[in-house]
Amino acid sequence: MQNLPFTIPAIHGAYQDGMKATEIVDLVYQRIEAVDDPGIFIYLLEKEEVLEAAKALGDFDQSKPLWGIPFVIKDNIDAKGKPTTAACPAYLYEAEEDAFIVRCLIEAGALLIGKTNLDQFATGLVGVRSPYQPPKNAVDPEIVPGGSSSGSAVSVAHGFACFSLGTDTAGSGRVPAALNNIVGLKPTLGAFSASGVVPACRTLDTVSVFALTVEDAYKVFQVGCVFDTADSYSKQVAAKSLSSLPPKFRVGIPDAATIEFFGDKVQEASYREGLETLKSLGAEIIEIDFTPFYNVAHMLYEGAWVAERYTTIEEMLKTDPEAIFPVTRKIISAAENFSSADVFRGIYKLEDLKRLAEPLLEDIDMMCVPTIPTFYSVEDLNVDPVTPNSNFGTYTNFVNLMDMCALAVPTSFRTDGRPGSLTLLAGAGKDAEIAAIGIEIQKRTQPMMGATDWKVPAPTTNPNPVSNAEIEIAVCGAHMSGLPLNKDLIARGGRFVRTAKTASDYEFFALAGGPPHRPGLVKTEAGQGSEIELEVWAVPKTEIGSFLESIPAPLGLGTISLSDNSEVKGFICEAQGAAGAKNISELKTWRRYVA
Amino acid sequence: MQNLPFTIPAIHGAYQDGMKATEIVDLVYQRIEAVDDPGIFIYLLEKEEVLEAAKALGDFDQSKPLWGIPFVIKDNIDAKGKPTTAACPAYLYEAEEDAFIVRCLIEAGALLIGKTNLDQFATGLVGVRSPYQPPKNAVDPEIVPGGSSSGSAVSVAHGFACFSLGTDTAGSGRVPAALNNIVGLKPTLGAFSASGVVPACRTLDTVSVFALTVEDAYKVFQVGCVFDTADSYSKQVAAKSLSSLPPKFRVGIPDAATIEFFGDKVQEASYREGLETLKSLGAEIIEIDFTPFYNVAHMLYEGAWVAERYTTIEEMLKTDPEAIFPVTRKIISAAENFSSADVFRGIYKLEDLKRLAEPLLEDIDMMCVPTIPTFYSVEDLNVDPVTPNSNFGTYTNFVNLMDMCALAVPTSFRTDGRPGSLTLLAGAGKDAEIAAIGIEIQKRTQPMMGATDWKVPAPTTNPNPVSNAEIEIAVCGAHMSGLPLNKDLIARGGRFVRTAKTASDYEFFALAGGPPHRPGLVKTEAGQGSEIELEVWAVPKTEIGSFLESIPAPLGLGTISLSDNSEVKGFICEAQGAAGAKNISELKTWRRYVA
Repeated sequence: MQNLPFTIPAIHGAYQDGMKATEIVDLVYQRIEAVDDPGIFIYLLEKEEVLEAAKALGDFDQSKPLWGIPFVIKDNIDAKGKPTTAACPAYLYEAEEDAFIVRCLIEAGALLIGKTNLDQFATGLVGVRSPYQPPKNAVDPEIVPGGSSSGSAVSVAHGFACFSLGTDTAGSGRVPAALNNIVGLKPTLGAFSASGVVPACRTLDTVSVFALTVEDAYKVFQVGCVFDTADSYSKQVAAKSLSSLPPKFRVGIPDAATIEFFGDKVQEASYREGLETLKSLGAEIIEIDFTPFYNVAHMLYEGAWVAERYTTIEEMLKTDPEAIFPVTRKIISAAENFSSADVFRGIYKLEDLKRLAEPLLEDIDMMCVPTIPTFYSVEDLNVDPVTPNSNFGTYTNFVNLMDMCALAVPTSFRTDGRPGSLTLLAGAGKDAEIAAIGIEIQKRTQPMMGATDWKVPAPTTNPNPVSNAEIEIAVCGAHMSGLPLNKDLIARGGRFVRTAKTASDYEFFALAGGPPHRPGLVKTEAGQGSEIELEVWAVPKTEIGSFLESIPAPLGLGTISLSDNSEVKGFICEAQGAAGAKNISELKTWRRYVA
Repeated sequence: MQNLPFTIPAIHGAYQDGMKATEIVDLVYQRIEAVDDPGIFIYLLEKEEVLEAAKALGDFDQSKPLWGIPFVIKDNIDAKGKPTTAACPAYLYEAEEDAFIVRCLIEAGALLIGKTNLDQFATGLVGVRSPYQPPKNAVDPEIVPGGSSSGSAVSVAHGFACFSLGTDTAGSGRVPAALNNIVGLKPTLGAFSASGVVPACRTLDTVSVFALTVEDAYKVFQVGCVFDTADSYSKQVAAKSLSSLPPKFRVGIPDAATIEFFGDKVQEASYREGLETLKSLGAEIIEIDFTPFYNVAHMLYEGAWVAERYTTIEEMLKTDPEAIFPVTRKIISAAENFSSADVFRGIYKLEDLKRLAEPLLEDIDMMCVPTIPTFYSVEDLNVDPVTPNSNFGTYTNFVNLMDMCALAVPTSFRTDGRPGSLTLLAGAGKDAEIAAIGIEIQKRTQPMMGATDWKVPAPTTNPNPVSNAEIEIAVCGAHMSGLPLNKDLIARGGRFVRTAKTASDYEFFALAGGPPHRPGLVKTEAGQGSEIELEVWAVPKTEIGSFLESIPAPLGLGTISLSDNSEVKGFICEAQGAAGAKNISELKTWRRYVA
């Protein structure tokens, strides 16, 4: 048990086998001691206090998804009765309440262990901009730990916290994940409440999750994704069940002219290798001119958004400027150069730049970028505290400005032994879709998790139970994954469930009309037809009415007999409408016809 | 013809009877001359130029919804080759292109007559803050014309423009409507493009429509509601067909403690009388504490949004401040007191205040407020140029900050002969819903339109009884009224709409199985079938998924061709499923078969 992997299924398995939560707590503190890095925690709970909390959980309760799971939080997030510093000793206050998100996790059974170091006021991507001794990178102490959520990332990479909370405005929940060989899940903005979290840029901030596996990170996302009426930036975001992998999906990547590795060929090779994995999963890769996204990114530190950071520390900048870390002070006080009118000019410019970038997203399901373009050492940062930090943000800075969700996924080690990492990006609300892909990437590429010798476990959850609020719809043509009308399912909250085949009494026709071209599935006499390939998608029942409106004659929604003798709702075609159309039954799939 | 009412149906009726567009142009200029108010136009087109445009239209073309309809625009909106001043002579520039919205209207056949006076830089609700001589109120020259869209409002009220464009940030498209006895339609933000419009507060501005009837204003809305990729604040807003009046709807009004008339009992009585009309239409009145809305409203002039106005005239304020109207200069230069951080604090506060107000809207379909709380005379404004202006905004200032749509509708004259006006307010995208109510209110209350002696015409559109949230489903069997499965429609909120017949190419079968016994409608070759009787029911779209689950093979939901060549969604049957079933086509209705 000493080497028990700290994933939720492994720990819950141990609980099922009779282990006590107090024993896990013992293990946590043994591991913290073994790691012996005083830079990780700004506040570590007394072991006795955590043991009390573990005892108070009572008997193992499987209905609590995080029962007995140890976690840590970044020290810009409140825990009741504990100090919050945002890595600025002069800012310290004792929190009267748990942050809303922390309360959600504790109510689900999680055990809080401590509060971790960060780039002061969450301003930075390097993890060394703290007056407290910075934590060491968990996999290689020479490289920076990454930030701003440095301590939260290394806690998970060392395997003494099963998951942790960071925050992410410019990339603070993703860059440290890449540097420490772990998963970083940055939710859709507003999915996690910000009540009880020190703001960086309140309009762009989100709490984020680090974990060893995508599955664990997504479970925490589902627990924490709760609307908070007290946070005006909280949104009603659906924490959907994980989809399984769709057979085909379209992935945008930066084109050759705009991809940037700052000369790091090893990183580029690692990224290309990751893309090969994506392709093997069914991805169609679409190269995109990334200039519009970089232009959006530049707004974050060159524009008026610095004034948002200023709102948090204006008082201290005026009364006690020396209390602020020098680099941080320099960055944030730049806000004094902007006027109120400049802020609105910045807001207008951002809208203009977003309008230029948005059309690039319409034709793809997600984007895949390197999480970081290259690596920097602690020594590099001593020489130049700014440039490496800016470079780290190449593929992260624009994401919250565009209101996208993101998932940093570890991949194979690079040829020099440093961790590989991809980031999947998609529009707001598509957290489940990118997590489904992330699970497969991690499973197929990452050899060991974090700084541990633990292998990636096989996913344990049944990823695709269809809920009562959904209906399975079998599609056989342009609505299939990767094809032109698939967006009509995605836009309605549809998710891929499985492939299937019709019973053998169907004929398949390429109908006249289009684009988009459509097939028709016509039932015929038993033994006279073919088994036709289908995709079954789960669609919210409430969306079927508007979906029906989008379906022209001779197609309709009816009942399809499947090759396993079951039935499913799906596309049917009036026989008369297929009269004279080309019979393509022998191809057995629309994909072969369109290819 | 001299007294031809300037509504779109009346003018189009005249065209149909042989009148020429040039004759309408003659009439426009005769009426302008008769009104004899030099304060209305900042730029009036030469009659010859408009006559040329009228000739260029060619023959009357009913497919153009605004063919030959004369209109005017506020002089902060561009017309190609004409000066734009925003009522500031020093700001004057010649527009290179029509504003996007103006182009939409002209392409639909409308004839531009001129550019109208306004409160300078659209800052004001009174209409007298212009260095040009202000226009006189059309119904009573002693009261202010209202602003900022003063000239556009009085042009319609005088009956020489059939409609006009204003802009509306704080109420500039509604307050002048109330003061001049006309309709003011303020669309959902982003429905109309702002390309070629001088911004006031770019994040809150919209172009608006004045017309004599709600029906005309809504027609202009439908023509102008076009997504503009060049305007980053343009949105994809659906210009839905007008709904007919729902039998019941819930209307929020300010409660007794928070309603405000500044002591004007006559105005209060007029408002209460209007509410009685609403009740007679089926409204349930819900009293609401309006404090949260007032708190939102205060952000507009007390908060950072003044800095938005500043962005437009910063240069002039620095180089030529005397060129700006004194009150306007004083209001906008207040932005110099706000810092960049203050702007974000303002944005946060607005979000917080909106979150407090939003829940009040969840339980109602719309709100109804007085458009203005009371009246002010030109003399009142000479005494105090600020307070009456602020008071006018009582029920308008919060609306764009909350992203609601609004419709100011004239009602009965007050007991003192001044015009009555209600404003309907609803969430973004509900422009059609409030227009449907507005049509009924206007029809039942307003005796004469604007300053004319024209009566409100009967609406000419055939109201579509099916709302956008519903879908028409044609049923041909056991789901018809009085038959065993009709309850499956009723239980899902379905309601009967009409009877119909299929096109003549359907065969009708009594399927095996049951009870309940079911028929199948199978499309066949043209001329080979019969017209089968249907009932069309409106079903909430959200219920179609569960309805589909209840439908067994070989039936499904698809598209039915009707005898009038239209289509409707409804029950279809797979041909194979009807093989061997009894053909009952000759009965033409399921009722005869079951009888």
